[in-house]
Formats: sequence, structure tokens, C-alpha cells
Amino acid sequence: MKNGKAVREACRSGVWHAPTSGLAAGFVQANLVMLPRDWAYDFLLFCQRNPKPCPLLEVLDAGNPVPRFTAREADLRTDLPGYRIWENGELIAKPQDVLNYWREDLVSFLIGCSFTFENALLEAGLPVRHIEQQRNVPMYRTNIACESAGRFHGSLVVSMRPMLPEQAIQATRICARFPRAHGVPIHFGDPSTIGISDIHQPDFGDAVEVRASEVPVFWACGVTPQVALASAKPPFAITHKPGYMFLTDWTDADLAKLE
Amino acid sequence: MKNGKAVREACRSGVWHAPTSGLAAGFVQANLVMLPRDWAYDFLLFCQRNPKPCPLLEVLDAGNPVPRFTAREADLRTDLPGYRIWENGELIAKPQDVLNYWREDLVSFLIGCSFTFENALLEAGLPVRHIEQQRNVPMYRTNIACESAGRFHGSLVVSMRPMLPEQAIQATRICARFPRAHGVPIHFGDPSTIGISDIHQPDFGDAVEVRASEVPVFWACGVTPQVALASAKPPFAITHKPGYMFLTDWTDADLAKLE
Repeated sequence: MKNGKAVREACRSGVWHAPTSGLAAGFVQANLVMLPRDWAYDFLLFCQRNPKPCPLLEVLDAGNPVPRFTAREADLRTDLPGYRIWENGELIAKPQDVLNYWREDLVSFLIGCSFTFENALLEAGLPVRHIEQQRNVPMYRTNIACESAGRFHGSLVVSMRPMLPEQAIQATRICARFPRAHGVPIHFGDPSTIGISDIHQPDFGDAVEVRASEVPVFWACGVTPQVALASAKPPFAITHKPGYMFLTDWTDADLAKLE
Repeated sequence: MKNGKAVREACRSGVWHAPTSGLAAGFVQANLVMLPRDWAYDFLLFCQRNPKPCPLLEVLDAGNPVPRFTAREADLRTDLPGYRIWENGELIAKPQDVLNYWREDLVSFLIGCSFTFENALLEAGLPVRHIEQQRNVPMYRTNIACESAGRFHGSLVVSMRPMLPEQAIQATRICARFPRAHGVPIHFGDPSTIGISDIHQPDFGDAVEVRASEVPVFWACGVTPQVALASAKPPFAITHKPGYMFLTDWTDADLAKLE
């Protein structure tokens, strides 16, 4: 699939229901959170205070599932390959679309995703192990607290890519160009420093191989808001399934222009 | 005055009530908007959709005038050198402090300011004419529409610094490091292209000299929200007086770390 639109159409028609890492190279991917209007202010403030895990790409008007900026022909209710439905902080369903769950008071948040910079890493000849191994990216809860905002609080979730030290340095330089896609790593090396007890047991996604001389490199992850949702327990929320992202019409170059 | 705290104390004690351009070099300055809680969501969304004029540094909790991040010992009601009080979009007072206007439902927004990058421009040997001429920076309304958000809409306000073309190119490179301080210019050259009819008649601040071979260079400006306030007409609002900014404890290097 060559672009964001092609991926969205494959999701909408039910053809694609797998992770989106590596799809439509060069097109910006996004995490999704949908919340009732009376919870939107607290969540918007949570994103403002935690820009590394929650770099906002677009916030839609309440009741509108069609983006104004990132993909004008999209429908956020059908165009992702997997959703999660939450009630009072509990996961209650994992549907392929959310047409039957949509409400007129829902505000949709699109949050930048590390899959955006993976294309730049690959172009620089750097390894992206979960793409090599055709798995979902490994994601972990940490012991790093996010800044609270109203009813939202929780710990930072990170994604991990194993690299040699010199590759991690190059990756840092490249990711500095993408602050709206989680930017530079937050840690490398010993996972226990940030509260990860077993690198082989991710909390979300799949484990990947860490080879000799490689260190795990950790980036802030857009699954962080899902942990904050589970703590805040809003009566209703919709998110994407981790790793199953929204494909926008923005290219990586469009993202750079925002800064 | 050597740092942000010294400037705040001079404001609080009534010693300083003049523009802050050039004060406490290296410390981040901020625009201020205070709004009732029921107007805060629309305004936060306006900032999210218009990050060049409205790069958020911090949003305080309702009823709290003491920043959590940018200056933990400050009081936003007393620590700026000049304020404006608004009722229904009309300017009704210009007090030196707002202790008598404070309300428990007010949410305070601190927005990045171009004075932050002026220090970097001066260090690079680039001219900052209004500092040379000891005036307030010239600011202009443009014909460029901001992205609307709820009840907030309006045109972009810009600040202007005259430079030679090669200086403007260097300034662009330097300002790219400061996306939270309005970042790169939005225009240079012919003012009429962006709806400015007379460069010698700024809408806010003071006119400055544009010398032979210099072109005016325009940056998005944190006075933009004041124009949006005048359009949206919230029942009550407090802002800083244009050019009379809040001095934080953050250094320019702290700001760079956020990205």
C-alpha cells in the first residue's frame, strides 16, 4: 500500500486488520483517543503537559469523526485496523470499526507515533528489529510518572528498538527532527533503570530479539494515554489497538514543516 | 537584572513597569492569557491548532496563579510589568497588578515569546533594532487567518525585525532551534503581501527604523490570542500588556530540551 489513503481504504473495507508498522512508508501515523466532551479538557491538558508521549497532531471538534487537517477524506470510526472500547477504565470490546459505538459528544485526539520516524531510521540503514521480524513493536510500562492533568495521571509507556551504541547515537540525531513523533529516545541500556523487569516480556506488542553488543533503546510511546485512561476511568472511551495506527495524508516532510 | 526572578521581583514591588525585551538575557519570556474555566477548552484547542503564534509553555490549573513548571516561586497576578483587563472583548483597564481582578475560576496560559530568541540573535551578531533603539517591538495585524477553535478565531499578529537578507537567513537558522518561541519567520519583504499597509504604523508597540537594503522580517506573535479574545468576547479575561512579558526561570537551553 503506497500511501495513507490506501491503508485507510484497506481498513475500512475490512481487508487489513494487522499492525501498521512499515506500511505506506513516509506517511505519518497516529495514535487515536476518543473521549466524551466533558473529559476532553483534562485530556488535552494531559497531552500539553506530556508532549513526548502525547505529541498532538490534531484534535477534532466534538461529534466530528472527519479530520480537518491530517486526512480530509478519512473517517476515524472505520479507517483504523483495530479499536479498543473502554468503560470506566475497563477494556470491554475490541471491534474492527466503531460505527456502533460512536457518540455525538466524542472528541477525537490524534497523537504522533514512532512508526513515523522508523522510515527515516531504515533509510539511514539503521535496524528496526520488529519490522525485520514482522512483529508488532514491543512496548513496556515504566516507573516514570507522567505530569498529571485533572483526572488523568499514570506512568510513561515506552517502545523499544535494539541497536548498537553507534546506531543509537545516529537514531537520536535522526529522531530529533521529529518532535511530533516522540522525538529523541528517553533512555537506552539497563531496562531496570526505568522500571522494566524483563525485556523479553513486553506489556504491549511482541518481544523482539536483542543481539550481542546491542542495547535496548527506549522512546516515549503513544500507548501512554491508554494507561492514563485506565487510571482516570472515564465512563466511555475509544482508542486504537496498540500498534494498529491511523494513517494520515501527511508526509514526514509535512510534519517537519510544523516546527 | 540578571535572571527571571530579579525581573519578577522588580515587577512585584512596582519598580519595573516597562517592556521586557532585552531583560535577563537567556531567560525564557512568556505571554499571558487568563480565562474562566468554561472558556479554557476552546482556548487550549486554539493554541493547539495555532502553535506558531501560540506555543504553549505551561497551562496552570484553574484557580492557581503559581506556575508548576516555569517558575515555582512566581505569582502571575503580580509578577508582570503590565496587564490588560477585558470584559466581553473590550479593554476596560490596564492595571500594574491583577490582585483585585483575580477569580478562583481563572485558568492561566503561558505562551512562548520572540524575546526568547532575540538573545540568540544578538549573540550571533544579528541586529535587533527595537533593542538598539530602546523601543517596544513593532507588532502588526495581518490578513492571515488563524485556524478557528470553538468560539476563538481571528487573524495572525506578527512582530517585525528589519535585517539584511543574509542576516534574515542566519536568523531563520537560529530561530529553527526555538519552536516554543514562535520558531522561524512566517514572511519577509513586502508587508502588503500579508495585509500590512504601513510598516511605519504598527498596531501594537513602536515603529523602528528600516535601513537601506534591509527587509522587514516577520515572526508569528503571542499577541495573536488578544485579537482572538477581542473577537470571541469572553465575559472576562486578563492578558499581559503587549511587550510587557512574564519572565520564567527556564533558560533558553531548558526550552530546547523540551523538543
